[in-house]
Amino acid sequence: MSKQLIFGHQNPDTDAIVAAMAFSYLENKLGKETEAVALGEPNDETKFVLDHFNAKAPRVITSAAAEVSQVMLVDHNEAQQSVADIKDVQVVAVVDHHRIANFETANPLFYRAEPVGCTSTILTKLYHENDVVIPKQLAGLMLSAIISDTLLLKSPTTTDDDRQAVKELAKLAGVDENQYGLEMLRAGTNVDDKSASE
Amino acid sequence: MSKQLIFGHQNPDTDAIVAAMAFSYLENKLGKETEAVALGEPNDETKFVLDHFNAKAPRVITSAAAEVSQVMLVDHNEAQQSVADIKDVQVVAVVDHHRIANFETANPLFYRAEPVGCTSTILTKLYHENDVVIPKQLAGLMLSAIISDTLLLKSPTTTDDDRQAVKELAKLAGVDENQYGLEMLRAGTNVDDKSASE
Ligand SMILES: [Mn+2]
Ligand SMILES: [Mn+2]
Ligand SMILES: [Mn+2]
Ligand SMILES: [Mn+2]
Repeated sequence: MSKQLIFGHQNPDTDAIVAAMAFSYLENKLGKETEAVALGEPNDETKFVLDHFNAKAPRVITSAAAEVSQVMLVDHNEAQQSVADIKDVQVVAVVDHHRIANFETANPLFYRAEPVGCTSTILTKLYHENDVVIPKQLAGLMLSAIISDTLLLKSPTTTDDDRQAVKELAKLAGVDENQYGLEMLRAGTNVDDKSASE
Repeated sequence: MSKQLIFGHQNPDTDAIVAAMAFSYLENKLGKETEAVALGEPNDETKFVLDHFNAKAPRVITSAAAEVSQVMLVDHNEAQQSVADIKDVQVVAVVDHHRIANFETANPLFYRAEPVGCTSTILTKLYHENDVVIPKQLAGLMLSAIISDTLLLKSPTTTDDDRQAVKELAKLAGVDENQYGLEMLRAGTNVDDKSASE
């Protein structure tokens, strides 16, 4: 089997970047050869997150078909939010928590969507179902994605699954979710930068 | 929460009928109030199956919006294969093993697709994930759906997941999958009817 790329949406947020990394790690553990990439540079919040857990940002691509014939999508499904040449590759898997629209395949595929607050919450469940242990660093990244998407479990999209995943991932990552979460959300709002330029 | 209807595609095959019954039983065990219905009468094979396991055919509907505002789809997703007024109801869940096309939602939903031979194989996994025991009668019906869709595990769409589900369901149902399977497939081809009319 040839390599498959995994990526989130354009103008990536923390979940788009992290879910690609988390799904790629899982798929590779299960025998696939995948690479997590991104459709844009990490934003300030995501930079803080990657930095905090000593992780490298996935490389940025502008074309998928130039490299592979099959891809997996995370944190989106709509064609206009995806890579520019999405029509020229086969989507073999999707893990997402958004509505389905402008999405069509020629063949059966793996599609996992749940109406929860964050893709990384669904991925936490997929790790359990496949009996794969989430490494400490990745747990920290996935925790950050859920904190980001649910605004520290305060958004109306937050579900019990998100709350349970946060508890578990914080333990695996060895961080206090509330203290770290506030710090992380603050990093995304660039309070310091804004004050400086004001 | 108000009642939700669950149904498979028009001109239902055994999987379309049985997957609705199996998903409804699971959802109700998990606290929902759902009813399995069908978009047509069972075919000869499905009649044999229902008869063999003493199960009643789901009632046939021609409109969903007349009864409910939310529905769940099994064994299909394309609008033209669904109930005539699918556009007038909200699809809150899909369990399917086909390509995705002509399908769009306004809101996030539960969507579970895998590239396996039969919807009932995916449902077998969902029962496990939710720690719900498959009753003996339902196991016999789900076994029949997999035998039907995969032609007794001989079709090119057959996967290891289908093989594993058949083994498990046959044990739960207390039948020999090969002997019963041949009998069932024969019932669907109506060998006797055809000879008589020839
Ligand atoms: Mn996102
Ligand atoms: Mn997200
Ligand atoms: Mn079918
Ligand atoms: Mn089917």
